[in-house]
Formats: sequence, structure tokens, C-alpha cells
Amino acid sequence: MAAPRPRRSDYVIFRPMQTRWMDNDVYGHMNNVVHYSLFDTSVNAWLIEQGLLDPATSESYGLVVETGCKYYAEMQFPDAVHAGLRIARIGSSSVRFEIGLFRNEEEEAAAEGFFVHVYVDRATHRPVAIEGARRSAFETLLV
Amino acid sequence: MAAPRPRRSDYVIFRPMQTRWMDNDVYGHMNNVVHYSLFDTSVNAWLIEQGLLDPATSESYGLVVETGCKYYAEMQFPDAVHAGLRIARIGSSSVRFEIGLFRNEEEEAAAEGFFVHVYVDRATHRPVAIEGARRSAFETLLV
Amino acid sequence: MAAPRPRRSDYVIFRPMQTRWMDNDVYGHMNNVVHYSLFDTSVNAWLIEQGLLDPATSESYGLVVETGCKYYAEMQFPDAVHAGLRIARIGSSSVRFEIGLFRNEEEEAAAEGFFVHVYVDRATHRPVAIEGARRSAFETLLV
Amino acid sequence: MAAPRPRRSDYVIFRPMQTRWMDNDVYGHMNNVVHYSLFDTSVNAWLIEQGLLDPATSESYGLVVETGCKYYAEMQFPDAVHAGLRIARIGSSSVRFEIGLFRNEEEEAAAEGFFVHVYVDRATHRPVAIEGARRSAFETLLV
Repeated sequence: MAAPRPRRSDYVIFRPMQTRWMDNDVYGHMNNVVHYSLFDTSVNAWLIEQGLLDPATSESYGLVVETGCKYYAEMQFPDAVHAGLRIARIGSSSVRFEIGLFRNEEEEAAAEGFFVHVYVDRATHRPVAIEGARRSAFETLLV
Repeated sequence: MAAPRPRRSDYVIFRPMQTRWMDNDVYGHMNNVVHYSLFDTSVNAWLIEQGLLDPATSESYGLVVETGCKYYAEMQFPDAVHAGLRIARIGSSSVRFEIGLFRNEEEEAAAEGFFVHVYVDRATHRPVAIEGARRSAFETLLV
Repeated sequence: MAAPRPRRSDYVIFRPMQTRWMDNDVYGHMNNVVHYSLFDTSVNAWLIEQGLLDPATSESYGLVVETGCKYYAEMQFPDAVHAGLRIARIGSSSVRFEIGLFRNEEEEAAAEGFFVHVYVDRATHRPVAIEGARRSAFETLLV
Repeated sequence: MAAPRPRRSDYVIFRPMQTRWMDNDVYGHMNNVVHYSLFDTSVNAWLIEQGLLDPATSESYGLVVETGCKYYAEMQFPDAVHAGLRIARIGSSSVRFEIGLFRNEEEEAAAEGFFVHVYVDRATHRPVAIEGARRSAFETLLV
């Protein structure tokens, strides 16, 4: 945690996200688990908007193989959260999304996390290559 | 279910709400439990915005004693949901909130629910009267 | 709420259920939404165990059309909860499950709820008749 | 992911954990977020059982500063999950819990994760030393 907290300028696109009453735990702040639901939502919403994912029918999709989060500051319902998104690495069949969560209008991230997807065939769960429109779209988020 | 589905004009105020990836269950639609989290969030967000509730410090707050929901049509992530809110009854210490959930721009509710709060003292959990600013605010939603 | 709280003897079968840290909200008790996740889980687990449901392949399944819950007493993580299950009505294509949630070893329910399923065809979402093994199994829970 | 999957013998104590219907997402497996709720629950349940935490009153408690998870294999409701727990490091005010999630009776972990707590004073949120009964209990899980 000696590394500086990320700032908004470290991310490529942003998505406003809402908190829910249930997100607060007994300590009155957003439970550490909820951050991952915001990561999951921001990545998949972007994929769907880009036309890269139809959860019911896509022949291949990203299976999550590793995730992580560093928590710098508390957030709580009814805060608005802004999720910054970038891609740190595009491999042959895997991609590493990185997400910063910003509380309300703050400039420094309250939390930062990552999400590694391996693209697999829906039927066989075997890895498939990231190519074509998927790779091109990923490159727009690459830093 | 012979009763007609509620329409937007049946509610007093509206709140845009987001769905999350996890809200969809294995059938590809928003799980029936999630509706209650949207009810909970829309009621409490309104209470907080009106200055009627500070979850950490309010001397009295609404304890949920009964809830219910009728499901008319499926919703799914990444739909936007609009929650319509009204109050159907204000008792001496209880209040009945009614919520309609509208999918994207639809005019008919995808679901309608209710939420009965009994106001209690934080320390003793004994009912307290709904009066003053709380009652006045509730009356603005009364239909 | 003038009706007496249900007792264990009012239900036919029981399932021990665990609470989770996140179930507690800022008031230190199990959030009202979580009860529905326990209802959902207890009904579907029973259906799966009885061989009546395979979520991925069953040609027909129960679509939830109405749910409700009355809350009599607080529960909280790490309580164990025992879910009592019974069926109150079996229609041509619908069934009403009723669930009592009992805190630890208590005899009176902390909450009671219901769950109305309409059986539909997976592909068309049209109602299908409850018959054969499904009806026979339901009758074992009928009170 | 070149490292071998952990086995049950890599953990000190185990806790049986239940899955819930809602844990399965649209792909029919336990959503990646749920793993963190199981981590959170297994660590806090152990702390409460050991008399090391009362969420409502403890003068100090563990604030989560970093978490992570590697996913090796899918799990799904209604699987039973066994959470293995160990401690990898006890610092002056921080502790690193490591958790393996085992599906039903499998010997190899379906997922492994970690959870770094910094102990803080409830009122000031300043770090406090891990000592006395807390440190002694932690040492029983140290590997």
C-alpha cells in the first residue's frame, strides 16, 4: 500500500454506479464484497454495450480466473460511485481489466481492483483466442 | 392477478435504479429477491434525502414488519429500472409504502410491492408516534 | 399481526440454513431482503433434492408470481436459521409454498412468508399443468 | 496459475458453508463475487466463536484493506462448500487470512483467496496492536 492511490486520470472510461441499502454492513460502510459486484457489473455492462457479449447466446465469454481489490477509504450507501475502467494487458485468450472506484466527486480512488477473464467456448469451456472486434474494442481501453 | 398492472401515473415520485450483473439468476432474469432490495433502497434513499433518517444516529427509525411483491413481467440486467413511490396509509406509528418497478421506459409496472414500517425508538425498539416533519413529508406521498 | 406467530409444528419439513456476515445491515440485524433469499433457497433445494427440478434442463419450472413476508422478531448473523416448509394450495398450474424461519432453537417463527410459483414451459413461458411426480411430491407437503 | 491447487491438508480448520439459489448467475455457476462473501463469513464466524469479536461492541476490529481470489473450478448451488482457514502472517496490527473453498468432498480447492485485516480502534479508526488473546488465537491458525 506504499503505492499512491489511483486518480481519475488513470482510467479511460467511467460509469456512474449506485449503492444499495443492503451494501452497508454492520459497521455502517459498504461491505468489502460489494466492491466486486461493482467491478463485475461495470465490466459486463461495457461488454454488453459494445456488442461483445450476449449472456444468453454468445458462443464464447470471459470466465473469471482471478480478482483482487485494495481498499483505501470507506464508501457507504447512499453514495454515488464512479467506476473507472482500463485494460492493463491483452493476452492471446485472457484480458486484465482494472477498475477504480471513486466516491461521489472525489479525485482519488476509494478502492482499486482487477478482474482477469479467460475467454472460453460456451460449450467446451476451452480457451479461445481474443481477436477481431473483441480485440479491437479491448485495445481502446488499453493503457 | 386479475387486478390491472399499475401504471406510472399511479405513483407520486420516481427514482432511476440500476441493475447489477449478479441480479440475474440462472434463468437469465432478475431474481425475485432483488426486487426487495430495490424497494428497500428506494424507500431509504428518499428518507435520507428528506432529512428524515440518518442510519447511524436517528433516535427512531422504521422497522420492517411486512413486505410483499407481485411480479408481472421479467426484468434483467442491464435494464434500467424506475421505482415509483407512494404511501397508501399513515397510521399512528406505522406507514405503508407502495412501490412500482418499471422496466426501462415501459408504462406498466413489471412488479409492484409494499413495505410496512413501524417506527421504533432506536434503544428500546418500542413504537413511537409518526409526527412533525416525518408525518408532513409522508403526506406528500399519500394517495 | 393479530394472528399468532407460527410454531414449528405448523410446518412439515425443516432445513437448517446458515446466515452470512453480509446479511446483517447497519442496524445489526438480518436485512429484510435476506429472508426472501432463504425462502428461495429452501424451496428450490427441496425441488432439486426431490428430482423435480434441474435448473439447466427441466422442460418446465416454477416462475415466481407473488411473494410476501411478515417479520416477528429479529435474527442476525451468526444465527442458525431453520426453515420450515409446507404447501397451502396446489392449483392446476400454481402452488403456494409457505415458509417459517426459526431462529436457532426457538419454537416460534421469527418470520413467515409465502412463495407462489406458476409452472411454465421453459421455452414458451406458458403455464403447464402440475401433474405426475411433481403433484405427488407437492401433496406430501400439503397441510 | 502455474502453482498447484491447494489441498485440504494446506489448511488448519474447516467450516461447512451453504450455497444459496441466488449465488448462481446466468452461466449456472456460483458468481465470482459470492466467494468473497464466503471468505468474509468464515473469517468473522471464527472470530466471533473465539470470543475475539462482537460486531456491536468490540473496541477494535479488523478493517479489510486487501482481498483476492483465484478461481480454479466452478461450484454451484446446491453444492456444499467447505472453507479451509489458515493465517499466513501476523504483523503488528495486521493479519493475513487465507481461505480455500472446497466443493463438496473434493480434495483440491475450487478457489483460494486471502483477506488482509488491519486492526483499528472503533472510534478513531487508527491501527491498534494485535496482542493478548487475539494474537494467541491467531497463532493457532498460523502456518
